[in-house]
Amino acid sequence: HFRFFFVTCGTDRRGSFQLSAMASAGGNPLVLPAVLHLRRSDADFTAALSERFRVLDFFSSGEPLPAFLAAAAAAPEPPRAAVVVGGGSVRVDASFLDAVPSLRCVLTTGAGIDHIDLAECARRGVAVANSGEVFSTDVADYAVGLLLDVLRRVSAAERYVRRGSWPVQGDYPLGSKLGGKRVGIIGLGNIGSRIARRLEAFGCIIHYNSRKPKDSISYKYFGNVHDLAAESDVLIVACALNKATRHIVDKDVLEALGKGGVVINIGRGANIDEAELVVALREGKIAGAGLDVFEHEPKVPAELFSMENVVLSRHVAVFTEESRSDLRAHTVGNLEAFFSGQPLLTPVDADSLVQ
Amino acid sequence: HFRFFFVTCGTDRRGSFQLSAMASAGGNPLVLPAVLHLRRSDADFTAALSERFRVLDFFSSGEPLPAFLAAAAAAPEPPRAAVVVGGGSVRVDASFLDAVPSLRCVLTTGAGIDHIDLAECARRGVAVANSGEVFSTDVADYAVGLLLDVLRRVSAAERYVRRGSWPVQGDYPLGSKLGGKRVGIIGLGNIGSRIARRLEAFGCIIHYNSRKPKDSISYKYFGNVHDLAAESDVLIVACALNKATRHIVDKDVLEALGKGGVVINIGRGANIDEAELVVALREGKIAGAGLDVFEHEPKVPAELFSMENVVLSRHVAVFTEESRSDLRAHTVGNLEAFFSGQPLLTPVDADSLVQ
Repeated sequence: HFRFFFVTCGTDRRGSFQLSAMASAGGNPLVLPAVLHLRRSDADFTAALSERFRVLDFFSSGEPLPAFLAAAAAAPEPPRAAVVVGGGSVRVDASFLDAVPSLRCVLTTGAGIDHIDLAECARRGVAVANSGEVFSTDVADYAVGLLLDVLRRVSAAERYVRRGSWPVQGDYPLGSKLGGKRVGIIGLGNIGSRIARRLEAFGCIIHYNSRKPKDSISYKYFGNVHDLAAESDVLIVACALNKATRHIVDKDVLEALGKGGVVINIGRGANIDEAELVVALREGKIAGAGLDVFEHEPKVPAELFSMENVVLSRHVAVFTEESRSDLRAHTVGNLEAFFSGQPLLTPVDADSLVQ
Repeated sequence: HFRFFFVTCGTDRRGSFQLSAMASAGGNPLVLPAVLHLRRSDADFTAALSERFRVLDFFSSGEPLPAFLAAAAAAPEPPRAAVVVGGGSVRVDASFLDAVPSLRCVLTTGAGIDHIDLAECARRGVAVANSGEVFSTDVADYAVGLLLDVLRRVSAAERYVRRGSWPVQGDYPLGSKLGGKRVGIIGLGNIGSRIARRLEAFGCIIHYNSRKPKDSISYKYFGNVHDLAAESDVLIVACALNKATRHIVDKDVLEALGKGGVVINIGRGANIDEAELVVALREGKIAGAGLDVFEHEPKVPAELFSMENVVLSRHVAVFTEESRSDLRAHTVGNLEAFFSGQPLLTPVDADSLVQ
């Protein structure tokens, strides 16, 4: 089968492209395949891509996006692949795909694909891949960390100690035991199933909701989130964001969860009706929440700042040194697969919207 | 075998004792056995004891301890059992036992027994019991919570979000993955073994130190803490405090752990040389620490307050609603065993100093 030869390349400060062809093993110097790079990344990531591809880097180009895309599309060998980031800075929709009609592959460096119009990509024959399982263990770990923090009041104890209250005040609110809790997981995919495995070790009882029951899973399945909430002490949002899962945790679900209930969100902010969540917390309709994601990041509802029973985080569940290096290898692997005509490592299609 | 009949009793606000004998099943009203109560407890705990015993409650007596003990010892039926709390407010030593020579049983409501002179108790034939496994799962959970917090910077993210930095600042330090970490546990008893089981579910590699290797445990054993630290990324203190374990984590051990290392302490503050720990953190000789206990509680070294890589807690690893109710049942169970001549549920002797 066909194999690409690699040459080193880099972009100078003005965004023009410098190529330095390397003799390949077979002796054939080739032009590197072009890759659109629409992500603010660390130097190691950019370097890893630049070793293997001609990187058209938006954030170092200094140009507005339309001009940047137009220039890329007009090049003699326009890019067939793009690397994008989740979180809203670049949306891969019809107008984006119109701007660079040469694209046949879009890789997002996160698990979420809510910024990508999968139907539009499918219609145009554009393959899409995400970060697959690269972040799954870190996100699952973080979900458990948030849950332990909310139940056992770790951050609250932190604030108490740091503000010097310990020697002064006697009373301190009791936490709640993790073991024995009924944990309802929304989305039992790569992340949700890892959360479940971890919480089993703490003696939790796992329930879940997903599009359909999973084969050979003994956890109790609930066909809708309202019923799941009614039978759970903790609700963990671990599903993708799409039309079906937007506000999947709404006022009714929060009421079904009830005043002893805790909500954890490591999915997307808009999986929860955030305004209703704030109301439920304010009025004591639920007991607490651990939130790594918010509906309008980086904005966090100010009312949460004064609450002691919430743990607020800044979309860092994927953030470890180890996952960053794994992502590098994974993205290069997906690009190499694409350019050599192999299946993507972690393809995403319209059917994988909910886990 | 002999069985006690229960009568209700309570103490009025001045600390004198009111007894209201209840007819037993056999029709024999008996005076309840007296129990010294030297612990500030919640109303439910006091009520549970008072239903079954004549409670001589120090903290509601308003008397100084020597006068209180002298009065108790001089009563016609002096107390044969005492319930005490760890943490230093009352030490069970020779002078304490001299003051109430009728004592034959001391129950402490925590796992730690560093406030009890076990040798002196043994010499006088005073049986000692602790809280056994009542708190083990909660403390193990809390240790995992602290570790996740330190590695993944949960509380640091909390502070960042609450002070409004998210929309303003771009950079945020990466966390470190829990999976794959070599975790060295000091003390593989009720708590340490539960920590190990939980961390296995996160993909950690467990090492341990204890007085001697445990049978049928596959974790790697280290005969001394220095070697354990040298082969670990994380060191978790889960042993009892006694002469052999005071400052078991000292300057040398911290240096062996090294600059990527993290220390978690849910044992006793004095298990770690706290001054050296602060130096190691200040100078970057270790990476971080999660501390629920301190050498001079409630005093916490002020220098820690300004560090972002430490998680400070206030000796709450045992603190849940559930464990409080379990403790009630457990303490009553130990007292009933003692007064009916049965073995204590969770006896502690001089041999159980290190787990």
